[in-house]
Amino acid sequence: MSAFKTVRGMRDFLPEEAQMMKYIEGKARRIAQLYGYSEIITPVLESYDLLAAKAGEEIRHRMYAFKDLGGRRVALRPEFTPSVARLVMNTLRNEPKPLRLFCVGSLYRYDEPQQGRFREFWQSNYELIGSNKPEADAEVIILTNNLIKAVGLKNLVIKVGHVGVLRGILDQEIIEDKVQNEIMHLMDKKQYDDAFELVEETEASEKCLATLRKLVEIKGDKPFEVSKRMEKQVKEYEDAINAVRNLQEILQIISESGEKIDITVEAGFARGLEYYTGIIFEVNVPEMDIALGGGGRYDKLIEIFGGEPTPAVGYAHGLDRIMLALQKQKTAPKTRKEETVVVIPVQDQLKGEALRISQILRDADIPVEVEVMGRKMSKALEDADRRKIDYAVIVGERELKKGAVVFRNLKRREQKTVNPERIIEIIKS
Amino acid sequence: MSAFKTVRGMRDFLPEEAQMMKYIEGKARRIAQLYGYSEIITPVLESYDLLAAKAGEEIRHRMYAFKDLGGRRVALRPEFTPSVARLVMNTLRNEPKPLRLFCVGSLYRYDEPQQGRFREFWQSNYELIGSNKPEADAEVIILTNNLIKAVGLKNLVIKVGHVGVLRGILDQEIIEDKVQNEIMHLMDKKQYDDAFELVEETEASEKCLATLRKLVEIKGDKPFEVSKRMEKQVKEYEDAINAVRNLQEILQIISESGEKIDITVEAGFARGLEYYTGIIFEVNVPEMDIALGGGGRYDKLIEIFGGEPTPAVGYAHGLDRIMLALQKQKTAPKTRKEETVVVIPVQDQLKGEALRISQILRDADIPVEVEVMGRKMSKALEDADRRKIDYAVIVGERELKKGAVVFRNLKRREQKTVNPERIIEIIKS
Repeated sequence: MSAFKTVRGMRDFLPEEAQMMKYIEGKARRIAQLYGYSEIITPVLESYDLLAAKAGEEIRHRMYAFKDLGGRRVALRPEFTPSVARLVMNTLRNEPKPLRLFCVGSLYRYDEPQQGRFREFWQSNYELIGSNKPEADAEVIILTNNLIKAVGLKNLVIKVGHVGVLRGILDQEIIEDKVQNEIMHLMDKKQYDDAFELVEETEASEKCLATLRKLVEIKGDKPFEVSKRMEKQVKEYEDAINAVRNLQEILQIISESGEKIDITVEAGFARGLEYYTGIIFEVNVPEMDIALGGGGRYDKLIEIFGGEPTPAVGYAHGLDRIMLALQKQKTAPKTRKEETVVVIPVQDQLKGEALRISQILRDADIPVEVEVMGRKMSKALEDADRRKIDYAVIVGERELKKGAVVFRNLKRREQKTVNPERIIEIIKS
Repeated sequence: MSAFKTVRGMRDFLPEEAQMMKYIEGKARRIAQLYGYSEIITPVLESYDLLAAKAGEEIRHRMYAFKDLGGRRVALRPEFTPSVARLVMNTLRNEPKPLRLFCVGSLYRYDEPQQGRFREFWQSNYELIGSNKPEADAEVIILTNNLIKAVGLKNLVIKVGHVGVLRGILDQEIIEDKVQNEIMHLMDKKQYDDAFELVEETEASEKCLATLRKLVEIKGDKPFEVSKRMEKQVKEYEDAINAVRNLQEILQIISESGEKIDITVEAGFARGLEYYTGIIFEVNVPEMDIALGGGGRYDKLIEIFGGEPTPAVGYAHGLDRIMLALQKQKTAPKTRKEETVVVIPVQDQLKGEALRISQILRDADIPVEVEVMGRKMSKALEDADRRKIDYAVIVGERELKKGAVVFRNLKRREQKTVNPERIIEIIKS
């Protein structure tokens, strides 16, 4: 009966996990509001060509792609950025910049399932569109730091690199884009030897290879020191020097903002997506092998899609990965447990009355479960006890004549006869 | 460049609409909590066989179905109920009943797009599982009424029918399930003549056809009176009589609960889904041609899927349809507009300081947009004015030496020099 199981790579979130996901989503939404990012909703299903355009080989081959009943080539989105770029270049093209946009939802990639990696996963996504200034990059990194802190995670490290450094070198060596993309792809997977082999196969100078070999060794948790070493290595590549300077400016602004962030800089850091042009970054905690989120600057994407030249920087994080990290760090989110009530009619003829009294309590914003199994009172009370319900309201004819019910505190095992308004007072006090 | 547009039947929600959707979703979630329904999250992608099993011809042919990269036959969910039933018969099979489950998300049907009908749509879904009692049906209908009232809609009418009446007649006439499903499908589309023709082609008695012809005429907004007329018509069909009595019990309990609901009963009312076995209902407002939501009892579905016999009743409503109804009724949701701040550095060297002061305000839960376009102060203030921002914080060197900034009330066009803590006091007061 495998038809009646979840499809491989998919999963259900049971109540406790679903609550945690909604808690993380709520924090992400609040961070969006605090930083001025407006929420939008874009479709799960997009045109294949849109999603494939600049996704990079790896993602392109792992998309859920198919033809719809009208023969359109479509795919389930593997990320949010192409959808946001589409919206910006069409519907929002006349909106004054900057645009700050936030979205949250499910995404799809046919990856090999492993811990923390499913084929359906959930992200919140922030895009700051229209600014090419380093303070825009700094804002997104500071936002990221605050988001991860807000959900309650500790010991996060933000790994930073700059695509412009590597691309600047490869551009100056006149290596064609397609080969550049392959090189970046291999570097993303830390297959440096394969990457260097590809470089060797091009017309690139020996200096190029030597520079790249040295660059991938440059990393560390003293951002300015690392960036100085990068600057020294790339001094014969003008665009690369400018990229390092851009990185330094961003680091400088973050430092001056006083935000406490553990940043490591890696000169050889690359990310799978082909559309990045500037700073790239990833968020990690020691307990997890995979990044909780990442982002970067993509100044050409909207133009490639046919829009106006529009610089942009964005960031996405995985809600389900954050959930896993919270579980590993044993950081339970602080959620208020509401006091709940069961309402039990003692006779069949009082079912309507039980619903009426339930509604009085709900109208006062009190959660109520009404007995619908036709069980005897003792059975229903036992069940309520087992499920750690706080109070029971027992609806009986005798009390009803006086407009009252029996109100039982299940924790203290006390009960008294009161009217529903008094119950509201007691629970709310 | 149609590749860079939304796919036909899909759409984006811009910030104002997205906010409305999130408002409706929030109300739906709160109603779930108030009625004791626990939230779960199930995948968008399910096995085709699960979704197709009892969906009914119409939905079955309009699913987004395809093979994944592993050759599995999958589809995008056209509704929530099969996923919830799957979960109940697998992971949750040992959980004590009743189970009250809530979920919200996007669904997919390849329908012809029209006003209020998209190929991607959004629903909240409530399932009460394990009870075959009329108070369970009553609870779901009362919940529905309160949900629609909670979002702010007026003049809703709940249309009620009972699949057991029609099925009871067709069963007693020994009409096979497949033909029954076709008849119900035609009745759902109000193609009564075609439905009757199908009945005529069976071995059914003349009495059957006469009864059905009369039943479809029986409807009205006095539920008990209508149900009495139904009872009279079906008196020679035992299961149908029991179904009418079940309907009467449910109506009786709702009436005794004192809940004010405009209910119309239609004896010939059918719904497209094949899995319904008991009461069915739909929510309408006069401004809309299509239902805002609907549901019903499905006592056999979990058993058909291979689980234990488990009675259940459920309800789903369309978030996007409710949004459209709110727009048509001109009922703007009451959402508090938060006071917002822009922070503008007067010199490039103060960008870090601007971020620092922004963070102080955000840490006090105040939304802040920081200037990232490198604009002159006057330009940035103009932009803030245009976007109806409440306050501007101007970060200049002279004030910073005293730990202060210029705080400008953009509405009143007043400003003073204060420290950030004072700004928090002013905005929070």
